Amino acid sequence: MPRAVREQQMMDAAVRIFGQRGYRAASMDEIAELAGVSKPLVYLYLNSKEQLFTACIRREAAALVAAVREGVSATEPADRQLWSGLTAFFEHTAERPDGWAVLHAQARTNGAPFAAEVAGMREEILAFVTVLIAEAAREAHRNPALPDREVAGLAQALVGAAESLADWANTDASVSAKEAAATLMNFAWAGLGDLMEGRRWTP
Amino acid sequence: MPRAVREQQMMDAAVRIFGQRGYRAASMDEIAELAGVSKPLVYLYLNSKEQLFTACIRREAAALVAAVREGVSATEPADRQLWSGLTAFFEHTAERPDGWAVLHAQARTNGAPFAAEVAGMREEILAFVTVLIAEAAREAHRNPALPDREVAGLAQALVGAAESLADWANTDASVSAKEAAATLMNFAWAGLGDLMEGRRWTP
Repeated sequence: MPRAVREQQMMDAAVRIFGQRGYRAASMDEIAELAGVSKPLVYLYLNSKEQLFTACIRREAAALVAAVREGVSATEPADRQLWSGLTAFFEHTAERPDGWAVLHAQARTNGAPFAAEVAGMREEILAFVTVLIAEAAREAHRNPALPDREVAGLAQALVGAAESLADWANTDASVSAKEAAATLMNFAWAGLGDLMEGRRWTP
Repeated sequence: MPRAVREQQMMDAAVRIFGQRGYRAASMDEIAELAGVSKPLVYLYLNSKEQLFTACIRREAAALVAAVREGVSATEPADRQLWSGLTAFFEHTAERPDGWAVLHAQARTNGAPFAAEVAGMREEILAFVTVLIAEAAREAHRNPALPDREVAGLAQALVGAAESLADWANTDASVSAKEAAATLMNFAWAGLGDLMEGRRWTP
C-alpha cells in the first residue's frame, strides 16, 4: 500500500480518536490499532503525537475551507452565496463531527501552537465571509455604503454564530445541518438584508 | 489586612498574568510579585496554580454574568433589554480584557476541567438569552409562535456572535464596546425583528 494512502488511514484514525477522546487522553496505541498498523509505523510516518495532531488539524482545516468554497458559486446573488456557504459548512461539520471537534475544541484547548494552526483557518473563512458581505452591500448599492469596519464586525459575528451553531448541532442529534443553516440564514440574512437596505436598529 | 482582601489582590494579579501570559507560561513567582506578597502566602491561601486558576475562572465568570444581568431591566421592551445586555457585556469584557482572556481563551485551551468551569457560565448566559428571545417573540405575539428549538438555535447564534465580537474588540483597540454592541444589535435585532414579524428568508 502506498505511503500516502497509509498516512491518510492513520490520520482518519487519529482524527476519530483525537476528536472523541481529546488530545491528551488519546493514545498512539489506540490510533495505530484503529488504523490497523503497528505503532512504530505511525511514529515512522508521522514522527510524534504532536506532529500527528498538527497534520490532522491542517488536513481538517483544508477540507473545511475547501467544502465551503466549493459550496459557493460566485455567479449567484449574495444571499444565495451565503445560504450555499452556510449549508456547505454545516453539512461538512455534521459529516465530520470528529474533524470539527479537532478544529474547534481540541486544537484550541491544548496549547498555543495548535491554536495558532486553527487561527489561520479562521482568518481564511473570515476573509471569505467579509468579501461576501461587502459584495452583498455593493449589490444593494445603497449610499452611504456599509463601512468596511462594520463589514469586518459583521463577518466576526457571522463566523462566531456559525461556530456556536455547529457545536450545538453536533451535540444535539435531532438538529440537522439544513436546520442549523436555515436558523443562521434567517438570523443573519434578515438582519444583514435590513442593514443593506439602510434599516438600522436604533434605541 | 483581612484574608479575603489579600485573596482578591492575589486573584487580581493572577487574572492579569494568566490573561496576558497564558495559563502554562504564567509563573506563581510573577503572580506573587505583582500582588506584593510572598509566594508561600499565595500557596497558603490558594493551594496550587490549578486551584488559583479555577478560582479566577469562577470569579470572572460570576462577574460577567452579574454585569449582564444588572445591565438588563426586565421592565423594558425586549429589544431594549437585548441592547442593554449586549452593551453591558461588551463594556465588561472591554474593562476586563484579562478576565475575558481567562474565560474565553485560557479556560478553554488548557484542558477539560477548566473548560467545564467556563461551560457552566456559558449555559447560564444561553439560558438568559433564550428567555429574552422567547419573551420578544411573545411580545410580538405572532401566530404561529417561534418554535422553542428555533429560539434555542438563535440563542446559540447570538452568544457565538457576541463571543467572536468580544475577541475582535479586545484585539483591535479602535473598536469600542459601544461599536461592538451596535454592530451585533443591528445584525441580530434587525434579523430577529424580521423573524418575530414572520418575515423569513427563503431561497
